[in-house]
Amino acid sequence: MKAIAVKTGDQLEELDLPLPELFELDLLIEVKAIGLNPVDTKVRKQQHSPAQPKILGWDASGIVKAIGKKVSRFSIGDEVYYSGDIHRQGCNAEYQVVDERLVALKPSLLSFTEAAALPLTSLTAYEGLYNHLALNSQSSHEFLLVIGGAGGVGSMVIQLARLIPSLKIVASASRPSSQKACIESGADEVIDHPLKISNPQLISRFNYIFCTQSTDIYFYPMTNLIAPFGKIVCIVESTLPFNLEVLKNKSASFAWEFMFTRSLYQIEMEKQGEILSKVAHLVDRRSIRVPPIQILTGFNIENVIQGHQLLETGKTIGKIVIEMG
Amino acid sequence: MKAIAVKTGDQLEELDLPLPELFELDLLIEVKAIGLNPVDTKVRKQQHSPAQPKILGWDASGIVKAIGKKVSRFSIGDEVYYSGDIHRQGCNAEYQVVDERLVALKPSLLSFTEAAALPLTSLTAYEGLYNHLALNSQSSHEFLLVIGGAGGVGSMVIQLARLIPSLKIVASASRPSSQKACIESGADEVIDHPLKISNPQLISRFNYIFCTQSTDIYFYPMTNLIAPFGKIVCIVESTLPFNLEVLKNKSASFAWEFMFTRSLYQIEMEKQGEILSKVAHLVDRRSIRVPPIQILTGFNIENVIQGHQLLETGKTIGKIVIEMG
Repeated sequence: MKAIAVKTGDQLEELDLPLPELFELDLLIEVKAIGLNPVDTKVRKQQHSPAQPKILGWDASGIVKAIGKKVSRFSIGDEVYYSGDIHRQGCNAEYQVVDERLVALKPSLLSFTEAAALPLTSLTAYEGLYNHLALNSQSSHEFLLVIGGAGGVGSMVIQLARLIPSLKIVASASRPSSQKACIESGADEVIDHPLKISNPQLISRFNYIFCTQSTDIYFYPMTNLIAPFGKIVCIVESTLPFNLEVLKNKSASFAWEFMFTRSLYQIEMEKQGEILSKVAHLVDRRSIRVPPIQILTGFNIENVIQGHQLLETGKTIGKIVIEMG
Repeated sequence: MKAIAVKTGDQLEELDLPLPELFELDLLIEVKAIGLNPVDTKVRKQQHSPAQPKILGWDASGIVKAIGKKVSRFSIGDEVYYSGDIHRQGCNAEYQVVDERLVALKPSLLSFTEAAALPLTSLTAYEGLYNHLALNSQSSHEFLLVIGGAGGVGSMVIQLARLIPSLKIVASASRPSSQKACIESGADEVIDHPLKISNPQLISRFNYIFCTQSTDIYFYPMTNLIAPFGKIVCIVESTLPFNLEVLKNKSASFAWEFMFTRSLYQIEMEKQGEILSKVAHLVDRRSIRVPPIQILTGFNIENVIQGHQLLETGKTIGKIVIEMG
């Protein structure tokens, strides 16, 4: 099968690789569309062995072509979407194997291309909001701050949080177009860059903070903005040490959301399939919008390289999706 | 009224002070017994103004002698116990005023002396377990590690966690007598000092860790012991910065429990009265034991100084309680 992979130091190559081995809970999926994410460029830069080329890509949709012996949830021909497992081969290939517990039927309203734009951001947003911040129906009238509300994860956070009636959602965004996007996603209010906040009414205001941007930059500002007994969740790796003591008087907490924890530790992996099923249901009910998509047509090395270059500008709006064509 | 207070630099003095002013939600309480805690010696060492002597003491039992205009939960003559508000005057006095929301009727099985040993540790343990670690009936078969299981807070943590059937409770303790105390409190297993853990089966094992000892010492060991999606709660202030990144692959979280957050920020203060009511009920059902108590008889400067000195040895077993006599 055709695959685009990294053999050594940061170089993408188009390779002809054997079909991957199918374990008993795996689905063999014919990939129809590939969503690109910053994790692709991060893994590209890691050390890999030339003898074991690493196939990148952790957002995809496709069709089930074969199933492992113990697969119980899917049948051949099912149209599915998933993010997958960062420690297995990714979706930049004609075929991929994925544990069925990480997979769901794709939203029926969406094309493969649209469906491939959703899994990683929606899993991150959902786990952050419902596992870590522990939002629930009693969170009404509480305040959530979404730092970076116009990005891929941020817009999904706002949309999924919007399902809780009367939760007050405040998003941060700098540019007017981003601020407009936050309101369209469902934010009640948009504020400027959190480092510029001088409004004393926002100090200790937020019961929940979901930071989709630099943890290093926003850690201390968040400790001012968080409410007593408040919860902070972050997704961007940090390089600095932090003085946790500043959260103590507030009995506040800090959590990481890392979308690949479940597959990495093989912990309740079926929860990710369940989340993707819920998201598909919400999309089909038109409660969640698909982000703007920039389509690259054709699965070839040029398009993957172009996609990575676009990601690395940091200026893409919405999702980049490669259609297999 | 007689009170023992700090006027300047670290010096306890016996003073004759006016009765404190009663606000509309306050109870005026005749103090019958005073529990001593490390927070007493910490506040003693802080800067105070000679014009406003600071009365220490945040564990007490007593009798309601007068009530504010809007008090609705208590009547004159009620026998109560409470920890109180660290930013108001403490209980080292013949009389004290406390917001009724922080107070509960004392366990009917207990003497005033026994009741004064419970509030601060049980509030800390309860908030840590149920607010921060979010233990619930679905936590069965999960693993809780209590670092310092034989101390005042630790023994209460074990007893309150023991109410969840099938939760596996592992406590750390070094001395044989402490290890025995952990088992008597309800721990399933006792391990040695967490820094000495070499058993690889304990790595990533614990869904919950409640650290009652030095956060500075145990932070990094806890990041090894915590399970994916696990929660850590700490109560001892830290002086070191920490590299939070080590928790990221596990999507783990870190929370502070500080018993005075609710009164400091005036946030749902009634929850503390509710917790103390639950604890009283559990004591009266004999589900919670009172810790060993070392009684100092008579409310005088000598006994308060002796109590502080005992606390500062760090070697007291159980609680020190001063009976007003």
